[in-house]
Amino acid sequence: MSGWTLDQVAQHSSPESCWVIIQNRVYDVTEFLPEHPGGAKIILKYAGRDATAAYVPIHPPDALQKNLPPAKHLGPLSAEASQTLTSDQNRRKKTKDEQRVEEAARKKPSLARILSLGDIEVVARQTLSSKAKAYYTSASDDEITHDENARAFSRFFFNARVMRPVARCDPSTRILGFNSSIPIFVSGAALAKLGHPDGEANITRGAAQTGIIQMVSSNASLSYSNIMDAAVSSQTLFFQLYKHANDTIAAQRVREVDALGYKAIFLTVDAIVAGNRERDIRNPWELEDEEKGAPTYWSENDASEKEVDGMGTAGALIANDDRDMTWEKTIPWLRGVTKLPIVIKGIQCIEDAVLAVEAGVDGILLSNHGGRQLEYSLPPMEVLYRLRQKCPDIFDKVEVYIDGGINRGTDVIKALCLGARAVGLGRPFLYAQSAYGAPGVVKAVQILRREIVTAMRLIGASTVDDLRPEMVERVDWQPRLPAKL
Amino acid sequence: MSGWTLDQVAQHSSPESCWVIIQNRVYDVTEFLPEHPGGAKIILKYAGRDATAAYVPIHPPDALQKNLPPAKHLGPLSAEASQTLTSDQNRRKKTKDEQRVEEAARKKPSLARILSLGDIEVVARQTLSSKAKAYYTSASDDEITHDENARAFSRFFFNARVMRPVARCDPSTRILGFNSSIPIFVSGAALAKLGHPDGEANITRGAAQTGIIQMVSSNASLSYSNIMDAAVSSQTLFFQLYKHANDTIAAQRVREVDALGYKAIFLTVDAIVAGNRERDIRNPWELEDEEKGAPTYWSENDASEKEVDGMGTAGALIANDDRDMTWEKTIPWLRGVTKLPIVIKGIQCIEDAVLAVEAGVDGILLSNHGGRQLEYSLPPMEVLYRLRQKCPDIFDKVEVYIDGGINRGTDVIKALCLGARAVGLGRPFLYAQSAYGAPGVVKAVQILRREIVTAMRLIGASTVDDLRPEMVERVDWQPRLPAKL
Amino acid sequence: MSGWTLDQVAQHSSPESCWVIIQNRVYDVTEFLPEHPGGAKIILKYAGRDATAAYVPIHPPDALQKNLPPAKHLGPLSAEASQTLTSDQNRRKKTKDEQRVEEAARKKPSLARILSLGDIEVVARQTLSSKAKAYYTSASDDEITHDENARAFSRFFFNARVMRPVARCDPSTRILGFNSSIPIFVSGAALAKLGHPDGEANITRGAAQTGIIQMVSSNASLSYSNIMDAAVSSQTLFFQLYKHANDTIAAQRVREVDALGYKAIFLTVDAIVAGNRERDIRNPWELEDEEKGAPTYWSENDASEKEVDGMGTAGALIANDDRDMTWEKTIPWLRGVTKLPIVIKGIQCIEDAVLAVEAGVDGILLSNHGGRQLEYSLPPMEVLYRLRQKCPDIFDKVEVYIDGGINRGTDVIKALCLGARAVGLGRPFLYAQSAYGAPGVVKAVQILRREIVTAMRLIGASTVDDLRPEMVERVDWQPRLPAKL
Amino acid sequence: MSGWTLDQVAQHSSPESCWVIIQNRVYDVTEFLPEHPGGAKIILKYAGRDATAAYVPIHPPDALQKNLPPAKHLGPLSAEASQTLTSDQNRRKKTKDEQRVEEAARKKPSLARILSLGDIEVVARQTLSSKAKAYYTSASDDEITHDENARAFSRFFFNARVMRPVARCDPSTRILGFNSSIPIFVSGAALAKLGHPDGEANITRGAAQTGIIQMVSSNASLSYSNIMDAAVSSQTLFFQLYKHANDTIAAQRVREVDALGYKAIFLTVDAIVAGNRERDIRNPWELEDEEKGAPTYWSENDASEKEVDGMGTAGALIANDDRDMTWEKTIPWLRGVTKLPIVIKGIQCIEDAVLAVEAGVDGILLSNHGGRQLEYSLPPMEVLYRLRQKCPDIFDKVEVYIDGGINRGTDVIKALCLGARAVGLGRPFLYAQSAYGAPGVVKAVQILRREIVTAMRLIGASTVDDLRPEMVERVDWQPRLPAKL
Repeated sequence: MSGWTLDQVAQHSSPESCWVIIQNRVYDVTEFLPEHPGGAKIILKYAGRDATAAYVPIHPPDALQKNLPPAKHLGPLSAEASQTLTSDQNRRKKTKDEQRVEEAARKKPSLARILSLGDIEVVARQTLSSKAKAYYTSASDDEITHDENARAFSRFFFNARVMRPVARCDPSTRILGFNSSIPIFVSGAALAKLGHPDGEANITRGAAQTGIIQMVSSNASLSYSNIMDAAVSSQTLFFQLYKHANDTIAAQRVREVDALGYKAIFLTVDAIVAGNRERDIRNPWELEDEEKGAPTYWSENDASEKEVDGMGTAGALIANDDRDMTWEKTIPWLRGVTKLPIVIKGIQCIEDAVLAVEAGVDGILLSNHGGRQLEYSLPPMEVLYRLRQKCPDIFDKVEVYIDGGINRGTDVIKALCLGARAVGLGRPFLYAQSAYGAPGVVKAVQILRREIVTAMRLIGASTVDDLRPEMVERVDWQPRLPAKL
Repeated sequence: MSGWTLDQVAQHSSPESCWVIIQNRVYDVTEFLPEHPGGAKIILKYAGRDATAAYVPIHPPDALQKNLPPAKHLGPLSAEASQTLTSDQNRRKKTKDEQRVEEAARKKPSLARILSLGDIEVVARQTLSSKAKAYYTSASDDEITHDENARAFSRFFFNARVMRPVARCDPSTRILGFNSSIPIFVSGAALAKLGHPDGEANITRGAAQTGIIQMVSSNASLSYSNIMDAAVSSQTLFFQLYKHANDTIAAQRVREVDALGYKAIFLTVDAIVAGNRERDIRNPWELEDEEKGAPTYWSENDASEKEVDGMGTAGALIANDDRDMTWEKTIPWLRGVTKLPIVIKGIQCIEDAVLAVEAGVDGILLSNHGGRQLEYSLPPMEVLYRLRQKCPDIFDKVEVYIDGGINRGTDVIKALCLGARAVGLGRPFLYAQSAYGAPGVVKAVQILRREIVTAMRLIGASTVDDLRPEMVERVDWQPRLPAKL
Repeated sequence: MSGWTLDQVAQHSSPESCWVIIQNRVYDVTEFLPEHPGGAKIILKYAGRDATAAYVPIHPPDALQKNLPPAKHLGPLSAEASQTLTSDQNRRKKTKDEQRVEEAARKKPSLARILSLGDIEVVARQTLSSKAKAYYTSASDDEITHDENARAFSRFFFNARVMRPVARCDPSTRILGFNSSIPIFVSGAALAKLGHPDGEANITRGAAQTGIIQMVSSNASLSYSNIMDAAVSSQTLFFQLYKHANDTIAAQRVREVDALGYKAIFLTVDAIVAGNRERDIRNPWELEDEEKGAPTYWSENDASEKEVDGMGTAGALIANDDRDMTWEKTIPWLRGVTKLPIVIKGIQCIEDAVLAVEAGVDGILLSNHGGRQLEYSLPPMEVLYRLRQKCPDIFDKVEVYIDGGINRGTDVIKALCLGARAVGLGRPFLYAQSAYGAPGVVKAVQILRREIVTAMRLIGASTVDDLRPEMVERVDWQPRLPAKL
Repeated sequence: MSGWTLDQVAQHSSPESCWVIIQNRVYDVTEFLPEHPGGAKIILKYAGRDATAAYVPIHPPDALQKNLPPAKHLGPLSAEASQTLTSDQNRRKKTKDEQRVEEAARKKPSLARILSLGDIEVVARQTLSSKAKAYYTSASDDEITHDENARAFSRFFFNARVMRPVARCDPSTRILGFNSSIPIFVSGAALAKLGHPDGEANITRGAAQTGIIQMVSSNASLSYSNIMDAAVSSQTLFFQLYKHANDTIAAQRVREVDALGYKAIFLTVDAIVAGNRERDIRNPWELEDEEKGAPTYWSENDASEKEVDGMGTAGALIANDDRDMTWEKTIPWLRGVTKLPIVIKGIQCIEDAVLAVEAGVDGILLSNHGGRQLEYSLPPMEVLYRLRQKCPDIFDKVEVYIDGGINRGTDVIKALCLGARAVGLGRPFLYAQSAYGAPGVVKAVQILRREIVTAMRLIGASTVDDLRPEMVERVDWQPRLPAKL
């Protein structure tokens, strides 16, 4: 068969019959429209046309295979049609945002000059597409919790100890029994391909080179097996589970990653509905206005318009997730599906930390989803501090981690002093892989390693076990921090 | 009779004989001059002339009928005179402020792009006349209490609970026994016509569509019956009473609204004299200077000038209000006039909350009048917090509400956690109706509903009864907030 | 005698024989040089020449008479010489600063548009000469105490009471038994002539018109009798004593003002040496540079220069003051010199408040000299708060006042709630008289009266006795204040 | 021998045979390459060439003699070669930074106009080379501890006492038994020659003139004997020891300074590894870019680059220091080497203060190395406060000093009130000598003396013994400080 012509496809451009082209192959998505987590509307925008550019950066390669029955895979375009698409694509004028990104990419500084995670973030913000930047940086409402996550660390100072032998200093630790060269891990974060074509695999390769553990998101933009393929044999990967509302579908996902060799399940509990990420929601309008040169103004016709129900990228990703999880029901269910260790990601108060321990999990990750979910959720560092003050025995019962707002080695050390086993970083690794690919990820870990070792030595610790609660003091004033990026 | 000529009217341009034209009708206000709450001076500016443009936006349509004896209604202008006025009005050059407003109205963004109450406020500030903006936004002295009302919420963080079933989430409640689709109500605010020709009726219509309750101000710019006419049959309206110093006049007002079907009396106790709203007082001078292109400078003649006694728009509205109310006298009086539930609006400390309960009222609204009255009155959220700490039993005895500084669904949820039955918003609805009419009001409620439901789910609450004091923690630092508008 | 020629005077231009011309009269100041509190150097700058312009604004008219023996008053210039000086003065090109001031004076806003003390300060800062502005506004070191004095008030909020009869509201009080129309007084401040040719008399006249009490500084730029002459018969004036190191000279000054009819002595104890007011010290250099168009640069010759020993205007004023006062010695001495009530001005901590009471004084003025003396002295409002917390009985034993940082009626009310009898304002009255003369002073009092009465009514107080400690609460956060001038 | 030609030297430009020219003399540093604390790479940049300009400002004159065996001192260049170098140097175009510095030096203000240490810092920042400024001003990570060191003082206010005789006021004290005219000393700081060709000797001469004590750093840019030579006979110098990892080398250094007449050993314990001073590390790149007119951009080749292991200037200085010091081992060792008093410099918490006393030292210097080492080390003033609260008896057992963040006389007085014997200043003296040489140092001391005496008098103290803990109060708010330089 010589393949489909563009005209043939173009005849299926309605909700009644909706075909789309993705990477020169034709798919009939008519019946899939109502199931699409991002809504039918966004697909219909491409009905009867090529959807490749919009589709690829935010879907794992196996998404079509998993979600669309084989009968709906209608086969390739004709060679001529493919060629037409390619030449259309080549002739297409670049958007202003694409031009900006290309210019920024040409001017980005040498990796040798990158000294801190902040430096990496600066480069990433310059080189990311507007869409990627909006998705990566956005946080809830007024982004106060996002900012407070980082500011919380600044209220903790060290009681540094001197005259202790620290010539030899070993920052390594074990997380759920797996080795980690430094006490940090990559916290799950979605859609790495938005920032770099190699996506999550950049992080996997960087983690392999530096001996740290990567937690892979359910919403990764590569398939779970793609990512595992990028790993070296001895490498540890964890899996961040967004539980589907349908237990069977959810179990299938868990069994898939268990079989692929992922070593732990981090069950996400703080994102059962999407946070209100206005920066992300506004982005398409801003791009549109930028292209047009002016915004769309209000007209009387608008008076009839309905409530905006879109919740940005995040809303689409978790539309089908389980909003009725409970300690009584969900943990036993998950134990029944897998023997892997279970960690609860998204504990935001002491009471739930206690309940998690009672439910028998292996670890808890104090997190408010990087400030992307509930605005005014307490910063994880503050929750950790309260846990240390009021439930110090909990640190003997489960491993405790935190993520959110970590930018420096001293942040990591503060959390470890108060009892955290390790500290997760999400956005910094998205930024690193976006700006510099796998070498950027390696660089980020090297920076953290250097900062962690320096801080350990200057605080008088030669191993992570030397880090003690009394080395950290919460002060009653707020230091003045550098301006935000 | 063929009506008055302009010349005839013009002969009555002195304090001794003062006629004015309003909407093509002639009135003899000579005897009314000393009674005018806004002072005689402002009327005399229009003596013998057309006063329509100044009069209409700040007086309810029934004001002349209520305040001027029929004999002083002198009848219509002649057709020729009316025509002359119209053509004068048409020829009149628009002021710079009018031009600015028209331009802004043309450019205002589509309602579909409005994501938050802050977005609405931005548009309103652009599209409001300078006079309306000054009146709506102004607050006392240095506007510190106004700002602190909002900042107070930012010191309360959530102890969010996870693993609770929240797929179904119902944000509805009852206020004084009346249904409300979400736990907010429209707090009384004066002079909606300053921002939109339909005035308070925009809010009434928007409230009907979204199932919330509107509290109508004594100082509304539509008559109380106009507003009730805009309501649907099942709709609940409350009445915000500014008590006239004369008990008989005051009782007449209460009986009027009772008869019209208003369902509760919110007795305002925090505005017995006008706050010092400099922004509002300065506005006429700024407009004058803008037209002239330069301010008026000091000359030696000014040395004899007297103390400024004008207190801006607010001073005029409450000039005749009762400054000698007491618990012992006023509450029994009001109970004698009406059987409607009574709520005290303007409680600012614990002691008065207790006295209010002892006086047997049905509810208290913790409020400092949106920071427009006593500068350095404690923010209502702080008063609510103290009430919860020191008098928790009060929440079992009366319904407690707060208003002032609410901008987000999380603000609402924080107040409910601490025991508030519902939360009032004033300015946001003025802004919404000014910028977009009734659809703007609907949008504002939709936004709040979405934010409230999201926060409830992410905090682990499926009904308002699930919101508990322990879910909120007052922190000992001040988060960094976005810059003011 | 036909008077001195300019040539004759010019021959006495050395330390050995130094004559100067002041207001067309010739003085031999050779022997006075070492006694001049401002140092010999500044006089020698004018040796043999006319010194009128530099002398007049900072010396009271009786200074020559008091300090220079009659034999050194050499008599008038010749008519021709006087004429020459006048025409020289007229031909003299105005400095850039003089030009700026004249322009600003032309453009100053009408007094009718002045709404707050802040408005007055804005105008004053625009219309004052650079020298006057530097002297009036300057404070110690980094001016932190100056700023904190005002910021301290912002941490006190009201527990406002409602439902109290306040239609009648009387803000008057008695200070040391003397009537005051509102609970404020003019705190002593030097050199009013720097800002306005009528100097302190402007304040005297304004105080008479508004019924408040003026405290006159030892360092007034009018003589004590000039100022008393400006007063009306029933008017109360207090005297701020800077005690001379020589008891006899000091006693003479006290007896002089006692005889003139001043009603109390405020002994200044916080200014025994001058604070480091850099803004004041720098001012002459800045003026010099402004005229030249460029600053003076460092040259190798400068290497030998000595320590700067000048301490600006303030240093000169108090050079001969008593630095060895004690409770045991000074209070009995002063009681021996006068029967007038004695108040200690400059109490900065609880311990000294107690000692002052034990020393039997009639009142204490909590003050850190408007932040012009010891940098990091506690703000008076904070000292008052500590006094109320730890020594509440002191308020029954002496009258307590505070000054420093008061800008609004609410500031006054806060201090009165905590026990202050009255509140002093210094700079605001200097600014008011500088910008608008006596009418400016009247305006300032009218503004304060309006703000005080409004605050009293809104807090539920109809007399100053109704103002109670429980109406004020010190909060644990710092409100965001408007930007500084 | 007529000396080496440039060609001869140029033949030794590889790691295998590396010669360099310094001040017209030739050295064979081939075998020294691996020992160079700053790494071989930086030397190889000058292999076979003149290294004078890079070498001189950061090495003491005796560095070659101490570190390079006599056989490697190959002797002088030929006269012709020297002349060539000189004329090359003269022809060399000045860098932009050199031009900026020369211009700034011409414009620097007269010393007579310098009123505060802040003024000196402003001039220094303008006149220092970019390299010197980067090294002097840089601090760790985000420079938060650096800033907080200074901010800590602003939270301490005075309870000033009045009516105390202070006409005579003596600010002198004794430090380790040695006289000091005011209670401050020069804290050790490296590389004064970076800012001024006379380097540390400027400070020595200024200290002699003003009667204060200088602590000389192990990393001084003059030799220890050069500096002692600049001193007058009675002058006291202390020595700041960076202990070499090799005890024998370390002992040799101690014995050298003991023999030279240094009077105490301040053992540095807070700088065993270098802090992360990004400003310093970035400086060479910025200079390079400034010359080129554009930065170096990332290229694909960079992907292979290794971790940056340079730690800026600081890293090189302490590369061989002892990272395994302990109380048990190091103090007895040092006591065995010298009879001089021993002070521990770099105590950062109470626990180590106690251990230092138990180890029998003579004094402790609370210091976090000016914020240049461990980011988030508690500010020394906060440590001092905790020491006073929790271990007040420690002040009877050893002398306690602090350094870090001192800018004003009031800072000094606050520390003395809480028990400090004296206060060290590092950077201010580097700035003073850089901007104005020895006269700048004298000026800095004069300023501090004036500020200290003024503060003592205004607080009611005539000797340092009158300064008591109850005169200082830590407040619970953060004053607003002037903007940073």
